[in-house]
Amino acid sequence: MAERANSVTLHPIGLVENGFEKTASTGPSEGVPSRIVLFEAFSEGLAGLEPGQQVLVVFWFHRSSGYELQQHPQGDRARPMRGVFTLRSPRRPNPIGISKVTVTDVVGNTISVSDLDAFNGTPVLDIKPAGGPH
Amino acid sequence: MAERANSVTLHPIGLVENGFEKTASTGPSEGVPSRIVLFEAFSEGLAGLEPGQQVLVVFWFHRSSGYELQQHPQGDRARPMRGVFTLRSPRRPNPIGISKVTVTDVVGNTISVSDLDAFNGTPVLDIKPAGGPH
Repeated sequence: MAERANSVTLHPIGLVENGFEKTASTGPSEGVPSRIVLFEAFSEGLAGLEPGQQVLVVFWFHRSSGYELQQHPQGDRARPMRGVFTLRSPRRPNPIGISKVTVTDVVGNTISVSDLDAFNGTPVLDIKPAGGPH
Repeated sequence: MAERANSVTLHPIGLVENGFEKTASTGPSEGVPSRIVLFEAFSEGLAGLEPGQQVLVVFWFHRSSGYELQQHPQGDRARPMRGVFTLRSPRRPNPIGISKVTVTDVVGNTISVSDLDAFNGTPVLDIKPAGGPH
C-alpha cells in the first residue's frame, strides 16, 4: 500500500437556510424547500447553474461528534446493525453529508433547492453536477 | 445569515488502488476496475456491503492545489468558461471528489468497484449508499 496520507482541512463555502432547527439524527422530509447561501467570495462559481439541474450538495454534519463503525439503521434498535459505510448516518468517521437536490432558482449568491436533507445553518462544502459527463 | 462556521479536518479511511498513475486532470475512463483498500481500523464499517450495490465514494483530490471559480470544462479552451460548481474539476475550493460506482466484490477490508474516477493512491474519505432511503 502507498504511504498513508495525512489530512485535509475544508472550509465552508456557504450555509443552508431552511425551517429545520431540530437536532434529530434524521433530516428534513422530502419536498421541503431550502436555500443555499454562498459566501459572496464564491458567487461567480455559480455561473451556468440553472433551474431544473440536479446537483450534489456536500455538507458538514457540524452537529455530529463521534461515530460507531456499526449502527442500527436510522437508530432503530429493531433493525440489525450494519456497517456505517452502508448507512447515511451523520455519526461517521468523516462527518460529511451528500444530498442530491434539484435546483429551483439561482439569484446572485443564493440557490433555491428542493429536498435538501440538512438542517438550518449547516455549512456547505461543495456543489457538483449530479451524474452526466465529467 | 448565521455565524460563519470555521473548518473541518478529515482523515482518510483508505486508499484507491488501480493502474492509473497519470497526473492529468481527467480520471480513468469507464469500465476500469479499482480497489478501495480501507485501513484495518475501519474494516467492520463494511458489514452489509454486497456486490451489485451502488455507492458514492468520497475522495480527496490530493494532487490538486488552488482553484479558479470559473474554468473551461475539462480544460478545453474551445468551450466557454463556467462556474466551478457546475463542473467536476479537481481545482475547486474544497478538493473533494465524488464518484458513483458499483461494488463488484468485498473481501475483508478491500472493496472492488468499477468506474472509480480517481487515480492510484487517492485517499478515500467516505463511502455511502447511492440513492435509496436514508
